[in-house]
Amino acid sequence: MLANIIEAGFAGGLYPVNPGVEEILGVRTYPDLASIPEPPELVIAVLPRTQTRSLMLECAQAGVRHVIVPAAGFSDAGEEGRRLEEGVMEVARDAGITLMGPNSIGTVCPSSGLATSIVSLDRMRPGIVALFGQSGLFSSGIARWINTGEKFGVSKIACLGNKAGVDEVDMLEYLRGDPETGVICIYTEGVSDGRAFAEVLREAAREKPVVVLKGGSTEQGRVAVASHTGSLAGSDKIYDGLVAQSGAVRVNDFEEMLDVAKAFAMLPAPAGNGVGVVSITGAGCVLSADAAGLLGLALPQPSKRFAESMKEVAPEWVPYRNPADIWAAIEASGPERSFTIASAAMLEEEGVDSLAVIFTVIPESRMDAAGMFASLRERYPESPVTAVLMGGDSGMLADWRDSIESAGVPVYTSPARALRALAALKFRGRP
Amino acid sequence: MLANIIEAGFAGGLYPVNPGVEEILGVRTYPDLASIPEPPELVIAVLPRTQTRSLMLECAQAGVRHVIVPAAGFSDAGEEGRRLEEGVMEVARDAGITLMGPNSIGTVCPSSGLATSIVSLDRMRPGIVALFGQSGLFSSGIARWINTGEKFGVSKIACLGNKAGVDEVDMLEYLRGDPETGVICIYTEGVSDGRAFAEVLREAAREKPVVVLKGGSTEQGRVAVASHTGSLAGSDKIYDGLVAQSGAVRVNDFEEMLDVAKAFAMLPAPAGNGVGVVSITGAGCVLSADAAGLLGLALPQPSKRFAESMKEVAPEWVPYRNPADIWAAIEASGPERSFTIASAAMLEEEGVDSLAVIFTVIPESRMDAAGMFASLRERYPESPVTAVLMGGDSGMLADWRDSIESAGVPVYTSPARALRALAALKFRGRP
Repeated sequence: MLANIIEAGFAGGLYPVNPGVEEILGVRTYPDLASIPEPPELVIAVLPRTQTRSLMLECAQAGVRHVIVPAAGFSDAGEEGRRLEEGVMEVARDAGITLMGPNSIGTVCPSSGLATSIVSLDRMRPGIVALFGQSGLFSSGIARWINTGEKFGVSKIACLGNKAGVDEVDMLEYLRGDPETGVICIYTEGVSDGRAFAEVLREAAREKPVVVLKGGSTEQGRVAVASHTGSLAGSDKIYDGLVAQSGAVRVNDFEEMLDVAKAFAMLPAPAGNGVGVVSITGAGCVLSADAAGLLGLALPQPSKRFAESMKEVAPEWVPYRNPADIWAAIEASGPERSFTIASAAMLEEEGVDSLAVIFTVIPESRMDAAGMFASLRERYPESPVTAVLMGGDSGMLADWRDSIESAGVPVYTSPARALRALAALKFRGRP
Repeated sequence: MLANIIEAGFAGGLYPVNPGVEEILGVRTYPDLASIPEPPELVIAVLPRTQTRSLMLECAQAGVRHVIVPAAGFSDAGEEGRRLEEGVMEVARDAGITLMGPNSIGTVCPSSGLATSIVSLDRMRPGIVALFGQSGLFSSGIARWINTGEKFGVSKIACLGNKAGVDEVDMLEYLRGDPETGVICIYTEGVSDGRAFAEVLREAAREKPVVVLKGGSTEQGRVAVASHTGSLAGSDKIYDGLVAQSGAVRVNDFEEMLDVAKAFAMLPAPAGNGVGVVSITGAGCVLSADAAGLLGLALPQPSKRFAESMKEVAPEWVPYRNPADIWAAIEASGPERSFTIASAAMLEEEGVDSLAVIFTVIPESRMDAAGMFASLRERYPESPVTAVLMGGDSGMLADWRDSIESAGVPVYTSPARALRALAALKFRGRP
């Protein structure tokens, strides 16, 4: 944890407490809380569950107001754990200490260099996406994935663990007002105060996109929830309804959460629900149209002007609709001219508010896709544009994804995932 | 196309017909069909749509029985195209020629070195998975993805295009009896003879796993289908019902198709519907349990023996359920011992017929995962085992995926995707 904080570039005072050694990782240690020269703003209680309560008493005495408890074995682990947690929380309440956890494996704030993850983390790229929830995934595997596999950065990550203290309501209250945060992602397995959560969720979703993944949506899932963080499952139905009515975007897994979050982080909201699709493959057109139908997106049919533009690159007999299959143009005039002309012409069409461009990454697709997307984004700054890569050599796919996302356009692996993200941009905030 | 056939290692006679040049890519050409020394088994008609009918007449005269027509612009492109297609098919019917296409961009058979794709293809790894449908994706981007991104190989790929001749019924008839094919994947946008398709689909699904992706499931999708391959949309509801009753596995996109196909290609069918889950993360447990609930999979609860085994690696107070959260064990004893002991103990449990092991790829997970999976596969050859990688550094994720799949265990990016594959293994063939 100390290594993480040093790696993250924390600039404030850092006081490891350990009576047994003089220094840890080059940082001078202190034998106890009382000998630290200033009252610490935050104490991270890296102790077994049975010793946490006495540390809390020390904190109370030293005037500490914020404590993170990473240890597990509290309400996540049966009756004895529940009693231990109650003992810890009693001290917190009496002393007015805000506690995050127990079972909180990490909080990260790249801009201030705070990183309390109990697993090792590289220094994280700052950005506007906040993620919080009960799971430690956000401050471990998902943090690492975002840092190495995505172009967007993070404002805050918080792992709430058992939520004995700080819970979803507190986090939403904070993040809706946090100027660093532009998108809020939540993983939750249930909330204790449904009414309060509904209220703050609605308020937050009015101001910023909020993406919610709910664990425990089935009976088997609710049983698993009880053993994970000790949350109660009773309010699940109420919860379902309130998320649906809040204007938050509900997703089904972490992949969909990141799909949607990166669209919010990289793209503007479209003016309307009309999507244009330009595709190298007919199957891409059909699956896009299916997705549009399911998601409530419209596919405005192109005017004669679109067909006129396409005559530059394709035989006259080729009919054009939206989604537009441009394979014949690619055969006749190559991918670069065909995709460039078709994409721009589609965005010029009345009622087309956003665009999905579908490729397969084969040698015949070779073109400066990143360049095309960069100029589309510049020419149509108000229209969200996405790319879909449906197959290709694995190495080329990775390169294409990297260069297109560097040009500010999120890449998806299926038409449905891209249109899902565009639908989220359009409909978020709408109950 | 010729380059593809040479690259694929075709061993039979190869006769390019071109009156203008002496040789192409080092292969001697012939001025016309009649001058080829033997009647060719298969003619690939690489000509514009307007010249295809006269070539068909030449084929009829030369005794050719099989023709593939790659050109588009037939029933996929309006009234004139439809008339041209009818003209071609008239010749085919009169002469008893089996025609694949028009608009068929590729057929691949790695074992015989046939590769008629009109886009360039590297030599493909032979295997047991057959893929066919109207889309050219199978013989372009998806072929390249399978060849570079997956461990399984391909028996046959066929792009049926407009299906004026060979259709889904013919392909299923053929593939169900094809000894090279162990798994059949279909992309279809609608069939012309629902009754015949239903019958052969049921028969094929009894013998081999059949995976079906249907384009045109919504009204918008059906409109797009009409303009892609000219298929009729009217029978869609009938179609939905008949796929559901056939015992085929229906999937929603190409990613899910490959998820399921690789499970069929790499794993045995489980004895029952009980799944064991071992996870580094509580969220993985909860989302697995949700997926099990939705998919009709059971989560047998572990006996005391499981908890006994876990005492080797974790504090005694840690409770164990299925899904089993083994984070406390990993903290206490490291990932290698914890995952190895928990996975084997889970597979020893009564009623656990298959296993999903969930990792996040962080430095703390470092272990010989491939070695563990290889020995699980050896020790429990009748139990399908999958791995789930929920986040991590992108480079490490790719390495883990590669080495685990090399050990014969398919890797998925979410618990739901892994359990979806296990459910397909269990329930396939069951209407």
